[in-house]
Amino acid sequence: MSINIVKPSILPGFIELIPADQILFNKMLDTIRANYEKFGFLPIDTPVIEKSEVLLAKGGGETEKQVYRFEKGSTDMALRFDLTVPLARYVAQYYSQLNFPFRRYHIGKVYRGERNQKGRFREFYQCDIDIIGNGTLDIINDAEIPSVIYSTFKELGFDSFTIKINNRKILKGFFQNLNIEDSTLILRAIDKLDKIGMEGVEKELEGLNIDSNTINRIKEFINIKGTNLEILEELQELGIENEIFREGLDELREVVKYIGLFGVPEENYKIDLTIARGLDYYTGTVYETFLNDYPSIGAICSGGRYDNLATYYTKQKLPGVGISIGLTRLFYQLREANIINSEENSLTKALIIPMEDCMDKGVEVVNRLRQEGIYSQIYLEKGKVGKKFNYADKLNIPYVVVIGQEEVETNTCSLRNMKTGEQTSVDIEELIRQLK
Amino acid sequence: MSINIVKPSILPGFIELIPADQILFNKMLDTIRANYEKFGFLPIDTPVIEKSEVLLAKGGGETEKQVYRFEKGSTDMALRFDLTVPLARYVAQYYSQLNFPFRRYHIGKVYRGERNQKGRFREFYQCDIDIIGNGTLDIINDAEIPSVIYSTFKELGFDSFTIKINNRKILKGFFQNLNIEDSTLILRAIDKLDKIGMEGVEKELEGLNIDSNTINRIKEFINIKGTNLEILEELQELGIENEIFREGLDELREVVKYIGLFGVPEENYKIDLTIARGLDYYTGTVYETFLNDYPSIGAICSGGRYDNLATYYTKQKLPGVGISIGLTRLFYQLREANIINSEENSLTKALIIPMEDCMDKGVEVVNRLRQEGIYSQIYLEKGKVGKKFNYADKLNIPYVVVIGQEEVETNTCSLRNMKTGEQTSVDIEELIRQLK
Repeated sequence: MSINIVKPSILPGFIELIPADQILFNKMLDTIRANYEKFGFLPIDTPVIEKSEVLLAKGGGETEKQVYRFEKGSTDMALRFDLTVPLARYVAQYYSQLNFPFRRYHIGKVYRGERNQKGRFREFYQCDIDIIGNGTLDIINDAEIPSVIYSTFKELGFDSFTIKINNRKILKGFFQNLNIEDSTLILRAIDKLDKIGMEGVEKELEGLNIDSNTINRIKEFINIKGTNLEILEELQELGIENEIFREGLDELREVVKYIGLFGVPEENYKIDLTIARGLDYYTGTVYETFLNDYPSIGAICSGGRYDNLATYYTKQKLPGVGISIGLTRLFYQLREANIINSEENSLTKALIIPMEDCMDKGVEVVNRLRQEGIYSQIYLEKGKVGKKFNYADKLNIPYVVVIGQEEVETNTCSLRNMKTGEQTSVDIEELIRQLK
Repeated sequence: MSINIVKPSILPGFIELIPADQILFNKMLDTIRANYEKFGFLPIDTPVIEKSEVLLAKGGGETEKQVYRFEKGSTDMALRFDLTVPLARYVAQYYSQLNFPFRRYHIGKVYRGERNQKGRFREFYQCDIDIIGNGTLDIINDAEIPSVIYSTFKELGFDSFTIKINNRKILKGFFQNLNIEDSTLILRAIDKLDKIGMEGVEKELEGLNIDSNTINRIKEFINIKGTNLEILEELQELGIENEIFREGLDELREVVKYIGLFGVPEENYKIDLTIARGLDYYTGTVYETFLNDYPSIGAICSGGRYDNLATYYTKQKLPGVGISIGLTRLFYQLREANIINSEENSLTKALIIPMEDCMDKGVEVVNRLRQEGIYSQIYLEKGKVGKKFNYADKLNIPYVVVIGQEEVETNTCSLRNMKTGEQTSVDIEELIRQLK
């Protein structure tokens, strides 16, 4: 029978890793998860496929165009495009079984049929935490979130990063005070500051038909710089008599105070009045985190406070605050920039290589190691010893344990450190001691 | 603005868990993963969506009907329905970058649009391991797999389970010897032995127009009972001069010998000549694992040896052996049978409850605990103390740390064991010691 061979390949815009990279990716994912759990977040896991009417209840915008939507039988279904909509549906659905404040983390894949471009993926991992209140949620929660970000990125091995913080009420109040009700386009212009500079922003604002006096007030505002306390003071001194502005300023002051108390060092968080976050559901505190040495990677973790999580699924008022790490993109960018590499990765500590007729002893040894919790493998195929050492080498397995006739007779084994080349003869107890 | 409320619900045939159950599910998943890694299996993670021409290269059968298949733009794509087809594609695609024997584990969700019925799910987790050889793969690998099953289910908390083993070459050779070339329907009848008994099987065989002499030979064959060694001996004594039969018997003998050497106790593995495994790609050793006390749950882990993994994607000959645990179904069944329950689950060790005006001290304490790696949470909302204790109780958090004015002044805190109700006054160092 002749079989038609299909070229093995995956869809464009999708990514998968060879095992050495996957080990590294999983380590990052495990670190994120452990940190989320350390801060008291509970796990949830929702279906990747949901009813279209549920996932797209909000409708409109880019989302609808990008979503993977299809029918099976007469059912209209879609793949989740974020973890926030499923969270909203979940909290509304299990409302009576959940305990509020409901702190949940969710790590899973989401799907967006985006235009195919470098560094953007159609399937990617999001790692989200959110704290959902029942009716109200204290502002201190907004200060705890940055301590989770800090703890997580520290443990991921980063030292030099900045959690930029703002409060959308300050922006909203500031623009109201300038008699600008819809500030969407202005915020979009300000958002480009890093890329196009102040002059560029000024030009964009002119293009929006904003008078020069107002433009100056805006420039003054986004030029406010200094330590967190200095910025808070300058905002105070603007003397803006707008209720929303004052509310935002009070919140930001409280958040900044408690971020410090939650143990985040001063150098790792910074008020930045140009941070607005595009998504329209944020209503208060907003966050964006950047690696100081790699600004081109963009925000590595973002989020904020929203007034009402689940408007489309329940009449309960469910305010919340949360963040998301887009791990697939982050991993890809870090690898491209050579900030991480998978060269020395191995989960397996030792490879047992039994010589001819020494298989039984080899199996006995690998059993013991595994019983002791030492991740290990035995080479079961026939073949030349060199090939077997090469196998350990290619898999970055740090130790090889050789068992030949002599070793069987003396009840020992030869332990080889694959990095130094050092080889010693040890008994099983000594072997366990050294590998542990 | 009035918003149309959509009833929050998921699609029929899908499952999701409340957090307490999710913690339990994740623990099982972590245990499986840790065991797979301990035995030297490498992680991979493939896209959930693949090209239809790749996923359905084999085509035909139930698969094609059940698969979630759709178009986006002009691309014909589908959701994976198992982890074996993606593995075949992966190994063919990265052949030159992989090291053989390639041992991989893959834990992920798969999708099948099955008829909706209790205990069957349209989205479920599979936890797979496979060992893939390049050209050849030693039979000892078939003996190592049961030791992974044993280690995994032991650590999952099961003692009384049986890994049933057979070899399809024995079946094939036995039926060849009876001049039956296509034994599919016979095997299907034998497979029902547990349900319909020997008489039922006999009736089914008669229905297949098999003569009574042959039926007697078949009955004799499936009646072979005893210890593993006794069964091997009886098979030998059948005196069947068929090459495939002999090959299968030699393999089974070798596998049984080495399963023991790999540390699996005699009572946990058992030759069962009625185990055939429906899937047609198994060619040698086959496994099915059952919980002795809950036979109605059916096989909790199955797999076997196949001659060639990736026929549809490469001309390389890639023999392999592997197993799969269908975790979603297993979890559901164990929960339904009250074998597992999530009542005492909490990842969080302690909830800090700060009294009025003691928030700053509370934050300081929770920081220290988290720095020490103690999973903990602080209750940040205002409200009555009783409500806060109730929150800890509902979340099964084992310890509550109360911080009031007195505690702030004396630099202590009150540690309450939520199970015993015992409450003691401790300083921070003592608190850490007790919670660790």
